[in-house]
Parts: sequence; C-alpha cells; structure tokens
Amino acid sequence: MADDKLIKALQDIVGAKGVISEKDRLEDYSHDEFSLPTIKNLPQVAVRPNNADDISKILKLANKENIPVTPRGGGTGLCGGCVPAKGGILILFDNLNKVLEVDKENLMVVVEAGVILKDLYACVEKEGLFFPPHPGDDTATIGGVVATNAGGSRAVKHGTVRNFIRGLEVVLPQGDIINIGGKFIKNSTGFSLLHLLIGSEGTLGIITKATISLVAPPKETSTLVVPYNTIHDAIKTVPTIMKNNALPLAIEFIEADAIELTEKFTGKDWPVKNANPVRHYSANGSASGVSNGTKEYLLIIVDGEKDEVERISEAIADMCLKNNAKDVFVADGKTKQKEILEFRSQMYEAMKPNCIETLDIVVPISEVVNHVEVVHKIEKEHKIWLPTYGHAGDGNAHTHIMKFGFKDGRPDFSVKKDWQQVYPVVRDLIHEDAKKRGGMVSGEHGIGLVKKEYLADFLDEKQIGFMKSIKGIVDPKGILNPDKIF
Amino acid sequence: MADDKLIKALQDIVGAKGVISEKDRLEDYSHDEFSLPTIKNLPQVAVRPNNADDISKILKLANKENIPVTPRGGGTGLCGGCVPAKGGILILFDNLNKVLEVDKENLMVVVEAGVILKDLYACVEKEGLFFPPHPGDDTATIGGVVATNAGGSRAVKHGTVRNFIRGLEVVLPQGDIINIGGKFIKNSTGFSLLHLLIGSEGTLGIITKATISLVAPPKETSTLVVPYNTIHDAIKTVPTIMKNNALPLAIEFIEADAIELTEKFTGKDWPVKNANPVRHYSANGSASGVSNGTKEYLLIIVDGEKDEVERISEAIADMCLKNNAKDVFVADGKTKQKEILEFRSQMYEAMKPNCIETLDIVVPISEVVNHVEVVHKIEKEHKIWLPTYGHAGDGNAHTHIMKFGFKDGRPDFSVKKDWQQVYPVVRDLIHEDAKKRGGMVSGEHGIGLVKKEYLADFLDEKQIGFMKSIKGIVDPKGILNPDKIF
Repeated sequence: MADDKLIKALQDIVGAKGVISEKDRLEDYSHDEFSLPTIKNLPQVAVRPNNADDISKILKLANKENIPVTPRGGGTGLCGGCVPAKGGILILFDNLNKVLEVDKENLMVVVEAGVILKDLYACVEKEGLFFPPHPGDDTATIGGVVATNAGGSRAVKHGTVRNFIRGLEVVLPQGDIINIGGKFIKNSTGFSLLHLLIGSEGTLGIITKATISLVAPPKETSTLVVPYNTIHDAIKTVPTIMKNNALPLAIEFIEADAIELTEKFTGKDWPVKNANPVRHYSANGSASGVSNGTKEYLLIIVDGEKDEVERISEAIADMCLKNNAKDVFVADGKTKQKEILEFRSQMYEAMKPNCIETLDIVVPISEVVNHVEVVHKIEKEHKIWLPTYGHAGDGNAHTHIMKFGFKDGRPDFSVKKDWQQVYPVVRDLIHEDAKKRGGMVSGEHGIGLVKKEYLADFLDEKQIGFMKSIKGIVDPKGILNPDKIF
Repeated sequence: MADDKLIKALQDIVGAKGVISEKDRLEDYSHDEFSLPTIKNLPQVAVRPNNADDISKILKLANKENIPVTPRGGGTGLCGGCVPAKGGILILFDNLNKVLEVDKENLMVVVEAGVILKDLYACVEKEGLFFPPHPGDDTATIGGVVATNAGGSRAVKHGTVRNFIRGLEVVLPQGDIINIGGKFIKNSTGFSLLHLLIGSEGTLGIITKATISLVAPPKETSTLVVPYNTIHDAIKTVPTIMKNNALPLAIEFIEADAIELTEKFTGKDWPVKNANPVRHYSANGSASGVSNGTKEYLLIIVDGEKDEVERISEAIADMCLKNNAKDVFVADGKTKQKEILEFRSQMYEAMKPNCIETLDIVVPISEVVNHVEVVHKIEKEHKIWLPTYGHAGDGNAHTHIMKFGFKDGRPDFSVKKDWQQVYPVVRDLIHEDAKKRGGMVSGEHGIGLVKKEYLADFLDEKQIGFMKSIKGIVDPKGILNPDKIF
C-alpha cells in the first residue's frame, strides 16, 4: 500500500496525531537493545492506537492489504522481538498506559498493556501490595514482559511473570478481540490459551490488557553480598541454598570484573566495598575485605518477617562460609539495599556500549557451575572477554559476548575484537555446551530474530512444526510480527 | 476393525497379557467417578502398553484403521475424561509405573505417567523432599493430574500441578514422540507446548513421562480448625488471610452438615470434637465447643519453621476470631493433624453414594461468599441438599448436588430426589451465578464429557474455535480421546 494511502487509512482509525511517518522519527523504532546492525529495519509507519478496537481495525486493514504489523512495547528486548523485520506498521502502546483497577480484595491489578513496570511498581506499592517479578529494565511494558514471559532477578521464590498472569485481553491477528481468563486463580476449562499466549512474543496476538496477581509485600528484606575467590565455589553454593524450605526472593551470581567495569562506568563504588554500615559474618571473625582476589559474588535477597529474615540470612551465611565464601555482608537497612540493587541494575548499562550479545541460556541448576566453567575456558581460548552472570537460583546464565579481549585471566580493554570473526564461533560453542547439559537457548528473553538460528538445535522438528501450525491457525497470512521465533 | 483382528494386532505390540477384551473385565473401564449412567461406554478393548514406543505404535494403528483411543489413568476423574465415549482402544498405564529418578541436586523427580500419587509422595518423602499439590485421590496417576492440571487442597501457597511440571514426554495423536522441556526451571523458547499440554485432558497427546519440581519439606506444620456459626462469617475471613505475606499451604471451607454425614459414613468422630489434645484460642477464653450451632469450618494448614508456624497460626487465629469464629483449634501434633486430614479426605467418599455431580466452579476470591450464599438459596428453593465446600483460598467451590432433600435448613435424608428433574435445573442456576461473578466452570477437574454443555457459556466462540483448530492440527482424524472438552 502506498505511504500516503496507508497513512490516511491509519489516521482515520487512530486520529492524525497517532501516526508517525517521518523517517528520522522512525529510526528509533528500527531496533531494540540488541547492539548489532544486522537486525535493524525501518517500519513503513508507526501508529499509536488508543484501545483494542483501534488495534482490531488496524489488523483487519493489514490483513486485507497484506501489510506486516509489529507490536513494540518498551523496546527493551535483547533479541529483536519488536523489530519490524518486514517493514509495515509498527504499533506503539503509549496510549494504552492506564492502570485500570487495583483490586485489593482479590490482590490483583488490571492494566493496559502499555503500562511500564516502573509505573506498575509505584502504583502497586502505593496500595500496599507487591509485584515480585523484576525484569531488568523498568521501562519495559507489561505487554512486553508477558509476551516474553520475562523473569529477572526476583523469580526464585515466586517464579516468572507467567505465574502472575490471570487474564489477558488479546487482539488476534485477524482482528478478533478475545478475553482469556479473569480474576480467578485456578482454571481447567479447555486448553490454556492464556499460557499459550504468554511467551509467544507477539506472534499469536497483540496483548492489550492484563489481569495480574499480586502478593502482600514482605515486612522486611535483607540483601546478602558474598565474595568468593573462585567462581566455582560461589556457584556451587547455590543448589545448597535452593534445598532450603524458605527460598530467597533472588539469588544472583556476579563477576568481580563486571563490577569493576560498572564502577568505572558509573563512577560509583560497589556499595559493599565500604563495609561500614553492613553487618557481616566472616570466615575468620574479621572483615576480610572484598577486593583482594575476589572473583565472584553471590547476591541474595531474603524477605519475610523480621525474625524469619534474620534466621534465613544467618542460615544462608553459614552455607556460604562452608562453601569457602570469604565473608558475608548483610545489608538490612533500606538505603544500603537500594544502593546495592541500583548498582546491580546499572551493570547491564555499563556492559552495553561494548557488548555484542547477551546470551540467555538456562541449564539445570546443578549444571550452572559446569556451564560457566566451560564459558571461561572458551573465553581464555578465544581471548574474548565473556563476563557471565545472572540468575543462579533459576539456572539462567547471561553470558555477555564483549568486544574486549581477554588476557592473563582478566579483560583486556586495549584489544577490540572484530565481532564478525570470533563472535559467531564463540556463541556456537556456548550454546553447544548448554545443549549438552540439557539446557535451553532462552530462559527469559525470548527468541525474536537474534536467537532463531538456535531453535532447531534445541527443539525437534515436530515441536517446531506444531508451533508453526498454531501460528498458521490464527495468522494464515503471517502478517503479525513476521519472521520472529521461527 | 473386527475384534479378533484388533486384539491380535495389539497383542503383537504389547504382548498377549497386555490386552483385555472380556466384556466383564472391560465393565470397570466404562466410567470414572461420575455417578450417572449417562456417560458410560464400553471400550472395544483395553491395552497395557509397556512404554511410549508401544503407545506410538497403537496410535499409528488407530490412525490407519480409524479407531478411537482413550487414555485412562487412575480413573479418579469426576467428568468422564477417561470414558471411552466412542468405544475403541482404552489405554491403561499399569506398566508405566516407575519412578525413574529422584534428582536431589535439582530438586526434581522423573516419573512414568502411570505412577500413582501415593507412590510419588512415599518415594519423595523417603528422599527428604516434598511435592506440595494434593489432589483428593491418592490413586490418581501423574499423567491424569497433569492432563487436568489438578489442584486440591494444598494449592494456595504453591499453586496447582502446572507450577511443578518442567518436562513431559508425550506421544502425539499420530504417533510421534516428543520431549518437551527438561530439568531447567525457566523457559522462553518458542510457544509453551508444555503449558498447552498441561490441562488438555489427553486430547492433544498421551503423556508418558513427567519431570516434576519438588521443594524442601516444611520443618513444621500446624492445622487450624475454626468453627463458625454462619457460612458467611467463615468464608468472609478468607480474603483477609490471603492478604498476608506468609500464605498457608491450604485454606479449606467445610460445611458442618457434610461433616455429620462423614461421621455417620466412617463411624468416626470429627477429630476436633474431642478437643483435648488440641491447643485452642477462643473468643471468650474458654472452649465453646464445636457442635452447638456450628454451620461451617475453616481448615487451614500452616507450614514453615517452628517459630514461623506459631506466629502465622496465631495471626490467623486472631483474624478468624475478629471475623466471629467461635473458637480456633490448633493441631500441631502429627497424629492429630493426620486424623483431621484423613477425615477430610473421606468426606468425598461419604458423599459419593448419594452425590449426582460434584461441581468445580472457580470465582474471584472475593465472590466465593456471595456465590455460596446463592447456592444455599437455590438449595432452599428447590429443596435439594447442596453441600458446598472446597478450596476457599483458590476461590474453588465444590457444590455437591445430592440425591437428598433439604428442609428447615438441614439435609432431609428421608427424601430421595429424582435426579432427572431437579438436577439439571439446579446445576444450570449455579453455573449461571458463577458466570455472573466472573467465574469459570472448572477450576481443577476439567471438562471431560460431563461439563461440555457449559463450555460455550463461559468461553466465547473464538476461543473455542482456536482450541478446536489446535486439536485439528495434531489429530486431524479426531481419534484421540474423542468427544471430550468440546
């Protein structure tokens, strides 16, 4: 369809202000957070619908005219899931940004899909409630985190976003609006279209509204930061912690080298360096310091009642020390905990300018240590820095394939790697290892465009065929988010 | 296919002993726990495959010869999900009864689909682990509880069976064997076929193996039994309890009249009648007794560390008393708790001989009290006993449509109702009310044959059409578990 005709048709649906067609304004919508230019593509036009009805009309038009349609939430994805790979219409959710209801009796919130996480947290907190999942970026939209079944650091105790979604309003690719689920908690009524839509990366329908379960906020939290001399000892501690009845909210593993880079990037010290305002249990009774030879940290968040938090923290500290932790710093004050988490959040920002790709491998928890050790063998062999950290409690290891070299056991910032050469080799090797350990290519980011080539390595032909057939049912012309996943 | 030819073909696959064709032996397989003869049907033949390969061969044969195939687990369902509605081959799982692995490092167990819950609990307990879900009947098979996404009383804190399933081996209707998921916890790799299969009632594939997450067992549990003078006050307490950060393992509501019937059936007293070995908090400082005018009980199980269990129990007792509970009995000894739970398990057995249908409605938690009040209005108006109890913490109310009359606010055992007259009227009215309150027809039992007629009342045409199309993809001839759900 010619530009002017399409623009006019879309303006008729959403109003003149809701249609963006200037090339320079469209540039921002040609990519997500994935760094390489390989997946970039401009949409023909971007549009800001006001509600599900608008989206229904757009999809009907698109079907009639064979125009690709791509939904884009916060654009915070790492796999190109919202890139308009075939051009066409890009759907923006800025106008679907209302929290429709906080239902305190049923502990649920009903939101439009364009509400960003930051606003959801604020609104829910104001009402004395808590949404546990915490995918990295606060500007991600609800529609986006549902579409990828996002996880983040706080998924150990309560699970990923999937566990919290009770209802969805979805516009199917041919324009039908369906309401799946509701405010009930359990459901065995027919196939779970709800769970099929969650994690389908906007290829089966466009999510416009979500009903989300909340929980009561924890009375207290404490954050443990645990330095180790070896990556092995740090990660080896995790299965032990998971065998406890009271699970922590989060168990992260972080490399000291990545922390150092973040310090440089932010100009701030890793908050446990100055250990003064932090209680600690140490192996030999005195603070051993964190800098001397520390290779890895565990970061553990414990929540509950005051006594419980103390008891669990102490038990975990004990497990860590038995697994050769150098020390255990316990931050229970709000300010210090916030500082630590903010620093943790900035780590990705610090890596980003020099990160080629963030991998998203999951393996059985018992295999995390072996997998990470193989990654570091590859790092040494191919002389490319591969800082690997993430959600140890879920077996989710984010290897960052960096543009820097690697020498004498440390990142070598003086060497810039050519991504076209070593990058494809290294990512193949890492994925091969994940496969060997019974793992999967994506734990929380999705497949999008970037990880498509690994799909057939991890899933057999029959499963991929089944998925493709499901796509074919609702989107026979393949207009919705084309080229993704498969 | 003629009987003898089919028997011979099946014997060639599973061996001579694995094929049952005698009419009197097949009789047991013509129904599940649903009481009415309306859904009964004999299979042509029943067969005991030894593994997924056998099932694959059977399905290939069935496709070639157009023979219906119905999988039957423990036969403990309540909706006819395992009834061979169109005759043909019935698949039994007696030979797929092995626990293949208990993986203590990853807190998982790998089992064949025919393992019954009782054996799973025993095996897992022996290894110092815990599988929280507790669907009513211990002889249900794993395959069956996955196929219905069963829940049971212990789903409040940890969720239903769905939340624990990480991997499935499934034989698709045309005989392909697929392995979905694995021992990893998170997954965003393509559409979730895992969650599509869970709850699909054996219509999309035959589950032959499952990888199941476990948790560490609670250090302590305590069971609170809380008598109330009104159903209203009892159920009204539940949303308050749910707003606590520390959720109980179970929150059940039980009617005193149903308890009385169970006492008669089992010849045993409701264990809290003799309150001696049970601590209690009472509204006026002294035991007020349970018999005088008690209409409803809450039964709450709290788990965790000793201190935590005491603290939560006390907090919940306080909430109950503020909501007009007459007393709060706390059983923390193992024997007393076991007695209470065994009595609770026998309630269904006591109702069964005179129960026409057990409904499985879910509504938002805030609506349970209103829904149950409407049920009791219907009970009074139509003079039919409708004891309603179940999983208050999940909003899952099991109304039992009984053959007895109802008079002066009590069941009237002298009147036997004619099920063909009042039953269809009453079940329509109750489902209408559930629909009005934003509820759903099945929370944990599934649709099977029995609840099919309500599907279109609760789901729109588009959703049902989507489900039917998915069925069409994998089972174009409609041979697997035909006539179910839709």
